[in-house]
Amino acid sequence: MSANANRGVVYQGGGKVSVESLDYPTLALGNRKCEHGVILKVVSTNICGSDQHMVRGRTTAPEGLVLGHEITGLVVEAGRDVEFIKVGDIVSVPFNIACGRCRSCKEGKTGICLNVNPARPGAAYGYVDMGGWTGGQTDYVMVPYADFNLLKFPDADQAMEKIRDLTLLSDIFPTGFHGCVTAGVGPGSTVYIAGAGPVGLAAAVSAQLLGAACVIVGDMIPERLKQAGSFGCETIDLRQEGSMEDKVEVILGDREVDCFVDCVGFEAHGCGCDHGREQPATVLNSAMALTRAGGQIGIPGLYVTEDPGAEDEAAKIGALSMRFGLGWAKSHSLHTGQCPVMKYHRPLMQAILFGRVNIADAVNVQVISLEEAPQGYADFDGGAAKKFVIDPHSMVRNGRAA
Amino acid sequence: MSANANRGVVYQGGGKVSVESLDYPTLALGNRKCEHGVILKVVSTNICGSDQHMVRGRTTAPEGLVLGHEITGLVVEAGRDVEFIKVGDIVSVPFNIACGRCRSCKEGKTGICLNVNPARPGAAYGYVDMGGWTGGQTDYVMVPYADFNLLKFPDADQAMEKIRDLTLLSDIFPTGFHGCVTAGVGPGSTVYIAGAGPVGLAAAVSAQLLGAACVIVGDMIPERLKQAGSFGCETIDLRQEGSMEDKVEVILGDREVDCFVDCVGFEAHGCGCDHGREQPATVLNSAMALTRAGGQIGIPGLYVTEDPGAEDEAAKIGALSMRFGLGWAKSHSLHTGQCPVMKYHRPLMQAILFGRVNIADAVNVQVISLEEAPQGYADFDGGAAKKFVIDPHSMVRNGRAA
Amino acid sequence: MSANANRGVVYQGGGKVSVESLDYPTLALGNRKCEHGVILKVVSTNICGSDQHMVRGRTTAPEGLVLGHEITGLVVEAGRDVEFIKVGDIVSVPFNIACGRCRSCKEGKTGICLNVNPARPGAAYGYVDMGGWTGGQTDYVMVPYADFNLLKFPDADQAMEKIRDLTLLSDIFPTGFHGCVTAGVGPGSTVYIAGAGPVGLAAAVSAQLLGAACVIVGDMIPERLKQAGSFGCETIDLRQEGSMEDKVEVILGDREVDCFVDCVGFEAHGCGCDHGREQPATVLNSAMALTRAGGQIGIPGLYVTEDPGAEDEAAKIGALSMRFGLGWAKSHSLHTGQCPVMKYHRPLMQAILFGRVNIADAVNVQVISLEEAPQGYADFDGGAAKKFVIDPHSMVRNGRAA
Amino acid sequence: MSANANRGVVYQGGGKVSVESLDYPTLALGNRKCEHGVILKVVSTNICGSDQHMVRGRTTAPEGLVLGHEITGLVVEAGRDVEFIKVGDIVSVPFNIACGRCRSCKEGKTGICLNVNPARPGAAYGYVDMGGWTGGQTDYVMVPYADFNLLKFPDADQAMEKIRDLTLLSDIFPTGFHGCVTAGVGPGSTVYIAGAGPVGLAAAVSAQLLGAACVIVGDMIPERLKQAGSFGCETIDLRQEGSMEDKVEVILGDREVDCFVDCVGFEAHGCGCDHGREQPATVLNSAMALTRAGGQIGIPGLYVTEDPGAEDEAAKIGALSMRFGLGWAKSHSLHTGQCPVMKYHRPLMQAILFGRVNIADAVNVQVISLEEAPQGYADFDGGAAKKFVIDPHSMVRNGRAA
Repeated sequence: MSANANRGVVYQGGGKVSVESLDYPTLALGNRKCEHGVILKVVSTNICGSDQHMVRGRTTAPEGLVLGHEITGLVVEAGRDVEFIKVGDIVSVPFNIACGRCRSCKEGKTGICLNVNPARPGAAYGYVDMGGWTGGQTDYVMVPYADFNLLKFPDADQAMEKIRDLTLLSDIFPTGFHGCVTAGVGPGSTVYIAGAGPVGLAAAVSAQLLGAACVIVGDMIPERLKQAGSFGCETIDLRQEGSMEDKVEVILGDREVDCFVDCVGFEAHGCGCDHGREQPATVLNSAMALTRAGGQIGIPGLYVTEDPGAEDEAAKIGALSMRFGLGWAKSHSLHTGQCPVMKYHRPLMQAILFGRVNIADAVNVQVISLEEAPQGYADFDGGAAKKFVIDPHSMVRNGRAA
Repeated sequence: MSANANRGVVYQGGGKVSVESLDYPTLALGNRKCEHGVILKVVSTNICGSDQHMVRGRTTAPEGLVLGHEITGLVVEAGRDVEFIKVGDIVSVPFNIACGRCRSCKEGKTGICLNVNPARPGAAYGYVDMGGWTGGQTDYVMVPYADFNLLKFPDADQAMEKIRDLTLLSDIFPTGFHGCVTAGVGPGSTVYIAGAGPVGLAAAVSAQLLGAACVIVGDMIPERLKQAGSFGCETIDLRQEGSMEDKVEVILGDREVDCFVDCVGFEAHGCGCDHGREQPATVLNSAMALTRAGGQIGIPGLYVTEDPGAEDEAAKIGALSMRFGLGWAKSHSLHTGQCPVMKYHRPLMQAILFGRVNIADAVNVQVISLEEAPQGYADFDGGAAKKFVIDPHSMVRNGRAA
Repeated sequence: MSANANRGVVYQGGGKVSVESLDYPTLALGNRKCEHGVILKVVSTNICGSDQHMVRGRTTAPEGLVLGHEITGLVVEAGRDVEFIKVGDIVSVPFNIACGRCRSCKEGKTGICLNVNPARPGAAYGYVDMGGWTGGQTDYVMVPYADFNLLKFPDADQAMEKIRDLTLLSDIFPTGFHGCVTAGVGPGSTVYIAGAGPVGLAAAVSAQLLGAACVIVGDMIPERLKQAGSFGCETIDLRQEGSMEDKVEVILGDREVDCFVDCVGFEAHGCGCDHGREQPATVLNSAMALTRAGGQIGIPGLYVTEDPGAEDEAAKIGALSMRFGLGWAKSHSLHTGQCPVMKYHRPLMQAILFGRVNIADAVNVQVISLEEAPQGYADFDGGAAKKFVIDPHSMVRNGRAA
Repeated sequence: MSANANRGVVYQGGGKVSVESLDYPTLALGNRKCEHGVILKVVSTNICGSDQHMVRGRTTAPEGLVLGHEITGLVVEAGRDVEFIKVGDIVSVPFNIACGRCRSCKEGKTGICLNVNPARPGAAYGYVDMGGWTGGQTDYVMVPYADFNLLKFPDADQAMEKIRDLTLLSDIFPTGFHGCVTAGVGPGSTVYIAGAGPVGLAAAVSAQLLGAACVIVGDMIPERLKQAGSFGCETIDLRQEGSMEDKVEVILGDREVDCFVDCVGFEAHGCGCDHGREQPATVLNSAMALTRAGGQIGIPGLYVTEDPGAEDEAAKIGALSMRFGLGWAKSHSLHTGQCPVMKYHRPLMQAILFGRVNIADAVNVQVISLEEAPQGYADFDGGAAKKFVIDPHSMVRNGRAA
């Protein structure tokens, strides 16, 4: 492959992705110059559940979209306005693109930056309606506002030793952690995590890191529950008979939890007899039922403003049938939105580098080549209890950033 | 009237209340001894919008219920376990009854005390499903856990001078303030208050006290909007054509506000052409539309778990059609529930006593006798821009607690 | 021993304590009735470093003072005003006595209750100038405001299984935890703990529970440092040559820490060549030097208003020579005072009961009889790396609360 | 004057300043390129009390230093890397220079930016040991990291109407506000402000904006106290006999305040008979005496690491004799350091633009020409109850930014 060749995972419509040749990135987005940006040689880039939303056709994502917003890379070129990030640095890229100069960014709300998406606050790489920035499931990718956005790992060799963990700093570890923080998880808390996909598992690890006394994870896929059990979580199989409250009581001796984290979002299915049918408000309604009075509900799971693929008319305009009075009677607060990754990635990096947390094992990282990405998408969509990490240059498998 | 005679406002079913003779209170609730309680001679007791919910038949409130949860009184008898409150003290009674000894109370969440209502967390005086405690629109009333619940005014004469303001510490001033605090109102904020009833007006005053740069109040009743305008709020008449965003832009030069406070709740009506029809989610959906990304939504307005009088089936079980994804895309947080009055009543008392705030004028307090209470209910239900304060012993009108 | 016999550890002046016969407690403090109180049969009661301050003659503690403020007990009698705590409950007693009814208590600041000490805010059992309440290194002890103060363990058998850990909830675990919380410790933090006595070790465990990336403990006693190392802390021996910054850099690759916790207080000695001499400001000055700009300094270690036993005149009136400008230039905040145990004991109990934390092993609990207490005082004063837990009724050693 | 001529206030040593011709600024600091910077035509620039520290010779400031860190300006040139700030914008410049890209800046701690001062965290314009950036008491000045640092006023005409107020956003209004925020001031608080200089008066206004019930200002200069009284503060003349506690009790009926703000710093003098002598710890010791248990102490007043001009040896190395145990017994927290202006300037601008606050009148702004600056320094040093605002281009006096 020539130095400047590039390849990437491209959405082909109708549930399909493929690996295609791409132009080598430039320090620009269309006409917008990005001299504040860098070009990264991608060290690792993960497949995310929200990529699946697009691939499954639940969004208006256009064919030809280059996917990928979970990126770790080696800086190979820096724009003239980049002052502190240097060629040769190994860096984690927050999935949210942020300018570092607007009111939101100054308030630490990098998930809703006002300057990177003309359509609305907030942007991401390789994502529909998120500003048009090219995705990073590629050999090379451009990252704007590099001094602001990037987290530099202090030592390259140490970083490559821990790369399977560090690769999760770009999205799911902070996202799960944010869910827990907004749910009020702290030392001694009892916590329910809805969903044992990678974000749910990352939330479970985060709850443990935050000192939770007991972490309960609920899902309908036994393999995922087993994964949750592997690092000390209690689990609830939603396919089994009985109320959630009863199941929680068996574990805790209490029918409610202190904190609830919704890692599922709008594509939820009810429990019990009707697995096949979507019930977009079911997790939120469970949250209000299961959370103790005065508790908080963290909602990192995605809820959309429009859902053209929804089964009913209300859901198509994003309207859910919520039992809001149930939460009101218990003085709940509900916390929504994309995780502002920058708020968390540095401390979570420290927790990884000092050996306090084994997030890669918890979410069952599986490293694959770029060519294997389409298979990874298919396996993940099938419910595999794995987190697929694409390793385009074999750096992860070789353990060397070269 | 004999020393121990008692009278009170009693719900008669079917939209009706009347003043009836009552037994003099005892230091007990049924078989539950309340030696921790006191008997108050009621100095003032206000009619609240949530009383109207019951009187209008929107709840399962039984006939014969003695109404009233906004109480200020003079201590005339103290149980043997009361140590710090003394006979002769003039005190404000938080509408939420709290034991001061459970987990919720220790966390400052007195609105969801675990020991005062066998049915669920939280209790109040004279309210359906709130623990069975007798209401205080009476000559005399019993207040349990007096040392914990009561706020003593430091000086009786000073208290009677400011009694029209201080009477609002039992509910609406803290409730409006809580709405603002949970909406994140602070110095420089732009704030939208939905509803110009007494709680909405109290929220508007609270927003000003918290340093808001601009407070906008929306309602459909011109008299109430005029009241809001009288103390410096901007107003929006919801009956007029045009989108909320357009109207906000005229005022602020911006189509969104920093903070939104819902002082309406589930009995909301839509704006525009269909005033007559309830749309229980309309304020919440407006909140998500009007609040800037990253903003907070405070919801002191009541949402119920069950609404037997609702117009549609979903609303009867408290299910609302919420455009939840709209809020999620903007990273909103929503904060619900009864105000824990004790968190706020002392500092708000200080603000009144030092002359920092004129809450009585803002909500247009009108003092009436106990006999006039039924007329007060009727006028308030008709949309009068007034806060009715019942003065059973003419102490407020005489300006003397005797 | 007759049912109502009682014994306790009594301060005899001049560095001496002895076990003496005592009256059986009553529900009163002098003339003050305490019908809100309970009598506890003491299950366990720990010797604390602050007891040593008194015994070493650094205070005005009178001879005859019954010592002990770290108490866990079995309720054997309840005053008539106690409603929720029952005879037979096993409970943890916060060392701070609090009424649950004053402004401080309502704000959660139970360490500075306004109603339990005529001399100043805050009280404790068996402590000079702290309200005159009898200490609990006894067979039986009276605890006032029992419904408010006591933490009931949910299950008696489970409690006795974990009693070596749970006994630390009355003081040092919450105290160490409070030091960490006020120092801003969270996931990923680097933390320096000054002092490896029981409170320092409890702070180190707390920092781990809060998710710290790296916890460094400094002391001058090798045995205590070894104890800190036993559960994963890094250690610094202050007797060794070299600057603190250099030693920290070897561990962290950074010359400063995020968070600093002073678990030593005013009886500090400098490091280096002059171990013998007290330097009451030395830990505070180190804190400002070692903590990064923007960091917080938690100070659970005791500083006194008057120190009759101090070596220099300034220190006798509690005046320290602080390099305050050093902290100011780094925008530090300093957080002082007694830990409000109630804020933390319930979640820390949960962490113990669910097996998240092994605090007893970390601080090296050694269970002794009441008769052995004087020897425990002597050993502890000699720097033993142990936490002495007195077991007056052999319940701890028998594992049964009977 | 030619377009590119420049003049500024220059420190001449020995208590003297003069106006001198200067080079026109470039987008650089020595060899460091600042393409992220802009050149401002200075609209207004204020004389600050901390400038006086240098002029009075209390620092190691070199002769020739161009002074001035309180700057409001019109953008006349923008570096190629500036993306959002435009030529023609009128902007407020925070006195702290910040990169917007380091850990401190990302945490909102712009007062301790890690990238703008090789000597230590934090930088400012025209200030000794603060990074070498040229001051702004000039016709033109360069501001680096313009997109991050600058606050753009939304409308130029409106800005010029309120320019006497807006000019205070660069330092003293946020600084006073920060003092109050860190002291825990909120609705209903009682507050003591030590010092009625411009920062003290700004703190008093801030306390009112935050909803304080009663604001007490103490000083020794009657003219300054009169100024404080002019906008509703209570005042204490420290030269008068009697204890602070007695004086506070007369005003509040209470011997302590909720919140204390030290707007004096290390150059404090004691009260009573010995005005002439510096007592650098006197305000801090008063703070601990006067603040209620559980209260917070905000310390925006400057304390230095070294004070070559101090009267005693300890103070020369910044060591103060603090009665730290007094604060410890009351569980105080102390909050120090430069105000991170960016955290506050936008909301305070909103409060000004919507007419919620009249800060210019409160601090008694006096507009002077650049030539009058030396006289302004002299008058201010003499204790004039004025805030001097230099208007180099007569824009303030003409009311037009041209």
